[in-house]
Amino acid sequence: MIYFDHNASTPVRPEAREAMNEALGGPGANPSSAHREGQLARAAIERAREQVASLVGAAPADVTFVSGGTEGDHAAVIGMALALEKRGRAVAISAIEHHAVHGAGEVLARLGFRVTHLPVDARGFIDPASVPAAGSGHTLVAVMLANNETGVIQDVAAVAALARSARAWMHTDAVQALGKIPVDFQALGVHAMTISAHKLYGPKGAAALVVDKRLQLRPIIHGGGHEQGLRSGTENVPAIVGFGAACDVAAGRMQELARRQEAMRARLEKGLYEMGATIFGEDALRIPNTSYFAFKGIVGETLVIELDKEGYAVAPGAACSSANPEPSATLLAMGVDPEFARGAVRFSLGAGNTLPQIDEFLKALKSVVTRLKSLTAMVA
Amino acid sequence: MIYFDHNASTPVRPEAREAMNEALGGPGANPSSAHREGQLARAAIERAREQVASLVGAAPADVTFVSGGTEGDHAAVIGMALALEKRGRAVAISAIEHHAVHGAGEVLARLGFRVTHLPVDARGFIDPASVPAAGSGHTLVAVMLANNETGVIQDVAAVAALARSARAWMHTDAVQALGKIPVDFQALGVHAMTISAHKLYGPKGAAALVVDKRLQLRPIIHGGGHEQGLRSGTENVPAIVGFGAACDVAAGRMQELARRQEAMRARLEKGLYEMGATIFGEDALRIPNTSYFAFKGIVGETLVIELDKEGYAVAPGAACSSANPEPSATLLAMGVDPEFARGAVRFSLGAGNTLPQIDEFLKALKSVVTRLKSLTAMVA
Repeated sequence: MIYFDHNASTPVRPEAREAMNEALGGPGANPSSAHREGQLARAAIERAREQVASLVGAAPADVTFVSGGTEGDHAAVIGMALALEKRGRAVAISAIEHHAVHGAGEVLARLGFRVTHLPVDARGFIDPASVPAAGSGHTLVAVMLANNETGVIQDVAAVAALARSARAWMHTDAVQALGKIPVDFQALGVHAMTISAHKLYGPKGAAALVVDKRLQLRPIIHGGGHEQGLRSGTENVPAIVGFGAACDVAAGRMQELARRQEAMRARLEKGLYEMGATIFGEDALRIPNTSYFAFKGIVGETLVIELDKEGYAVAPGAACSSANPEPSATLLAMGVDPEFARGAVRFSLGAGNTLPQIDEFLKALKSVVTRLKSLTAMVA
Repeated sequence: MIYFDHNASTPVRPEAREAMNEALGGPGANPSSAHREGQLARAAIERAREQVASLVGAAPADVTFVSGGTEGDHAAVIGMALALEKRGRAVAISAIEHHAVHGAGEVLARLGFRVTHLPVDARGFIDPASVPAAGSGHTLVAVMLANNETGVIQDVAAVAALARSARAWMHTDAVQALGKIPVDFQALGVHAMTISAHKLYGPKGAAALVVDKRLQLRPIIHGGGHEQGLRSGTENVPAIVGFGAACDVAAGRMQELARRQEAMRARLEKGLYEMGATIFGEDALRIPNTSYFAFKGIVGETLVIELDKEGYAVAPGAACSSANPEPSATLLAMGVDPEFARGAVRFSLGAGNTLPQIDEFLKALKSVVTRLKSLTAMVA
């Protein structure tokens, strides 16, 4: 099986596994415990916090560990909106945010907040000028850094600057950007940012909400007062140290990885064009590992199933949740015809992929597409 | 270092580590992915769901995986209260619940709910008769199965029966009971129950909210619609399979473990009585691994630090959160004098402890207590 679905999840890199194995083999003490074993676990978490902070240009105190990207997005969007609700009860969320941010928006809507959606153009790019102006009552703007489907990189720094001038707080979901392009919390100028380990060759179960420590968010999970009161619950020590180790390695590998992936994607997309595919977001700046395409008349899920039989793992439309079979909301927001949007397939490279795998994949894809097209022709 | 702090967290047992290692070594696919690798991850989760359900006498469909006990308690208490808010906006929570349940109660209070606290007697036992009657507007009762500090086992079945007759839903936090006494979801008659892996020789980062699948809770984290919509976010596959493996082993080991721990605790407490300690909850039914005691005039934290120097890990008063230095709320609810409550030390046995360790510990404790008492006498 050749795996081209790294935007859904990545394998855990050896350095992260090693760190986790060490944590899993110990006495398993609770990092809140006052005794030595507890303090060793605490020290391991704080080392990981420094590793994570260092990768994204933040201070360790800005890093709050949470269980995953979805929780991080919820904690940021809901926590910030509730913290500011005396100033206003409206939030602006881009139309192409991850389900996690839209889900948080729905929670706020149920609490009586007004949720507006920032539009995207045909390339899947959010125009920073769409940020609500001061006086609109908006206290929060949420725009992701790189879209999980198209891979299109947004001008988050520009959006953040406009949000700040409108006195709104700004959140960015940087889950798909981390490790693929430089992500600098300070340079982006956002108030909060979500990143996740399992998209960065770290384990599932660890993510971070990076948030300016001067801001007082309303926590969504509170009890024992862990993580400076922002996220209660015993810390997932093994996953956190794995996250730290993955971050520690990521910075040094990123440039070389990006260069290799760009070459692989260029070869892939040359083949895709020759086969008549449409590539979504092709004219925008994209993270180097992602290609999102469709063939007219072929349903994405069918293509995924057929490619799976050939030994290739790719994803249909809005992946991350096969529970959700509707056409991709991102593509609909880009103005893609719903029927054509159902054809979308996401191909996402990882550190282990090679150029020969691309050639093999193109060969398999060509034969599958030819077969499916002839079937469609017969039906029609 | 001899570890006597298993109520704070347990080591990960070999069967769980093995299952986790397998999951951590694979392609790391996302269980929501439609391709084969994703479906293998999905199958691993479903197997774990059966293992967890089987240990607690629930149907697999009743088990929702969450990131930890605190999140599980939040999802249950907030999710149930919000689901029923049209019928009433009052919840009853025992005075000795874990911080996680009290934290959820605070969220509800901020949303305008009335939160009443069920009292305990001097033994730390909740009188089932204190459950609010029908017509009181209470829609939810939350009473834990075994208290994390005293180890006192509550009559949850009786409370649940009364709650049901008052048309309220019933939640129990069974985190500290699981693996120590039989926990049967059906027999308890509760609507929802929280259990956690890392108190059961499973890993941190996995827990379950067991909830009657006919009930529609309002999810607190939603986005991609994972876990039947009750908990969005990519599942923590390695931790979940570790949880499953830990549950799989627990049932067969429980009786023998309980018998050994009862013998060890009896020896410990004989020694404690001889040294003049007070043992909290001694006259109530308790889980077999826990002893909670204090010596007059000695601060619990000091005792913990001195015992740590001697190589023994125990916990002061309200452990699980050294962020919280106040005297134990559980002891205050039991009517213990606040000054004396500051002396509380929790000793909690695990599967790896032995009788000779108890004898060694008692010797060390005696010398530490004698030293501290002579210091106190000098000061006084």
